Amino acid sequence: MREDELIAALREIVQRPSRRIALGIGDDAAVWQPSRSHRSVITTDALVENVHFSRKWLSWRDIGARAMVANISDLAAMGSRPVLATIALGLPADVTNADVLELYRGMVAVTDDARCAIVGGDITRAPVLTVVVAAVGEVRATRVRKRSGARPGDVLALTGPLGASRAGLQVLRGDVALDGSLRAEALAAFRTPPARWREGLWLAASRSVHAMMDCSDGLSTDLTRLCQRSNAGAVILGVPMAQSARTVAERLNVDAQAFALAGGEDFELLVAIAPRSFDHLAGRFEAHFRRPLIGFGFVEEQPGVRLRSAGAERPLPATGWDHLEE
Amino acid sequence: MREDELIAALREIVQRPSRRIALGIGDDAAVWQPSRSHRSVITTDALVENVHFSRKWLSWRDIGARAMVANISDLAAMGSRPVLATIALGLPADVTNADVLELYRGMVAVTDDARCAIVGGDITRAPVLTVVVAAVGEVRATRVRKRSGARPGDVLALTGPLGASRAGLQVLRGDVALDGSLRAEALAAFRTPPARWREGLWLAASRSVHAMMDCSDGLSTDLTRLCQRSNAGAVILGVPMAQSARTVAERLNVDAQAFALAGGEDFELLVAIAPRSFDHLAGRFEAHFRRPLIGFGFVEEQPGVRLRSAGAERPLPATGWDHLEE
Repeated sequence: MREDELIAALREIVQRPSRRIALGIGDDAAVWQPSRSHRSVITTDALVENVHFSRKWLSWRDIGARAMVANISDLAAMGSRPVLATIALGLPADVTNADVLELYRGMVAVTDDARCAIVGGDITRAPVLTVVVAAVGEVRATRVRKRSGARPGDVLALTGPLGASRAGLQVLRGDVALDGSLRAEALAAFRTPPARWREGLWLAASRSVHAMMDCSDGLSTDLTRLCQRSNAGAVILGVPMAQSARTVAERLNVDAQAFALAGGEDFELLVAIAPRSFDHLAGRFEAHFRRPLIGFGFVEEQPGVRLRSAGAERPLPATGWDHLEE
Repeated sequence: MREDELIAALREIVQRPSRRIALGIGDDAAVWQPSRSHRSVITTDALVENVHFSRKWLSWRDIGARAMVANISDLAAMGSRPVLATIALGLPADVTNADVLELYRGMVAVTDDARCAIVGGDITRAPVLTVVVAAVGEVRATRVRKRSGARPGDVLALTGPLGASRAGLQVLRGDVALDGSLRAEALAAFRTPPARWREGLWLAASRSVHAMMDCSDGLSTDLTRLCQRSNAGAVILGVPMAQSARTVAERLNVDAQAFALAGGEDFELLVAIAPRSFDHLAGRFEAHFRRPLIGFGFVEEQPGVRLRSAGAERPLPATGWDHLEE
């Protein structure tokens, strides 16, 4: 069973009708209703040593920051403002207390920026370093943005280009060399990825934004999920690519679009926007954030994701991360 | 650094003044304020294979149930009603999907009983089975019960006797033999411990209940924590012991009180109650739950925990679980 199939089976087991739960398993985060006008959002994400990262390539602060960003990003993708997080740590015997304090400093750098509090946790022994964060956000009921809201005709856009994180990993692995600003871009994307919570809040304030999710498992996989939840399909006109990703793909002699499509952990937000509002919204976005909101395709009725190039369309398989694949 | 010292150091790093966070690190769970009259409560707890449990001794359902009970118990200890939980699972390669579904069924048995929803999670590979639950509860502001509320003179009570879980572990390990109902009591306590959320809600409704926590790391350790948070001390007149624990201690030729004091994971609630209300409250508790609320000591001004026996008092070291000790 693949990850998505297992999750569907688990959903069957846990599903219960509940007035309090506005959104359960299957989106970036779950939503519940603490009072009539408020919605709270919760997400959890695990980082496991030698599965998601290696201590060779990340400092203790980087590990803490990445674990936190993965969660803040899920909250952002729902349109919610981060409020608090809890941390469950599994520590191998060789980890010192100084290491743990550094890990926490990395998390606090992210939570301070997002004005989010770390309120508790659990620490235990484990055979490999394991960092599990659960984070809670808050959002007005009208501003919740789900994966399921995309409509045929919507413009698909990203808050930033893709592939730099994967390029950084390949540089660290020694698969390829990069210099100067390209090297810096790739390593920063891998070590300290952005948490787009400001962008998420800003976008969720617009009624033209119909659907939102974070792009953490590769665009091919994530866009397929968004389309499935929206009962729709999508056409990609061109994958927004970071310059470092383009260069690494060139040097490795692989297709640059495929490289960026399959690379995960960029944590940019993937958004479906009403077509007649897109230009105006993108202009305001760029004026506000000094970076473009990059349109790259559109939503169609026909299911599946297709890549259009030189006038022809070819179906795009989900080539991103399946967390259970060997 | 011991667990409690490391947690104190981490608290320094994460501490930020916040109007929204009513209670941060250092209790059974954290408390925040989604709106004026409401309080939400969050806790997280990790179960790691070969650290907290062995697959030899627990079925998949048992593992799921235990992971969930540990969290529901923390919510109960704050006086809150469980609302939802998220699950982060780390799966070794030998775990089948059928195993994961069974694990979830064990969790759902507990959440269904507590009318709590499982709303999401994260699944990934890991070298050993790792189950991290984060759970959220809700409580009226006036009903939050902290560790810090105990006052000199308060009666200390437990919602049930201790030591049966440890007795069950020793039976499964083959350290000792038990038969019949004692064996059943010990194994049930170890495999499917109780989640005292009904008792927690009921007790938190009384203004005479000044402090509450769950007893999961051994009474000696947990009571020491409650006393430290309350700037007080305690005298134990006699440790409430399960019959199976008494019998196992006898057969192992160890002191029965010490056995029960050091054994964790009983998940009974430890409560500090205004002395003049105790008898009345205990009578109502027994009428309602058909089990006694067991008074076993009282709170004093003098710091530290003491065991009184045959007219003499001796200081009690914290002999329970330190999750970072080898």
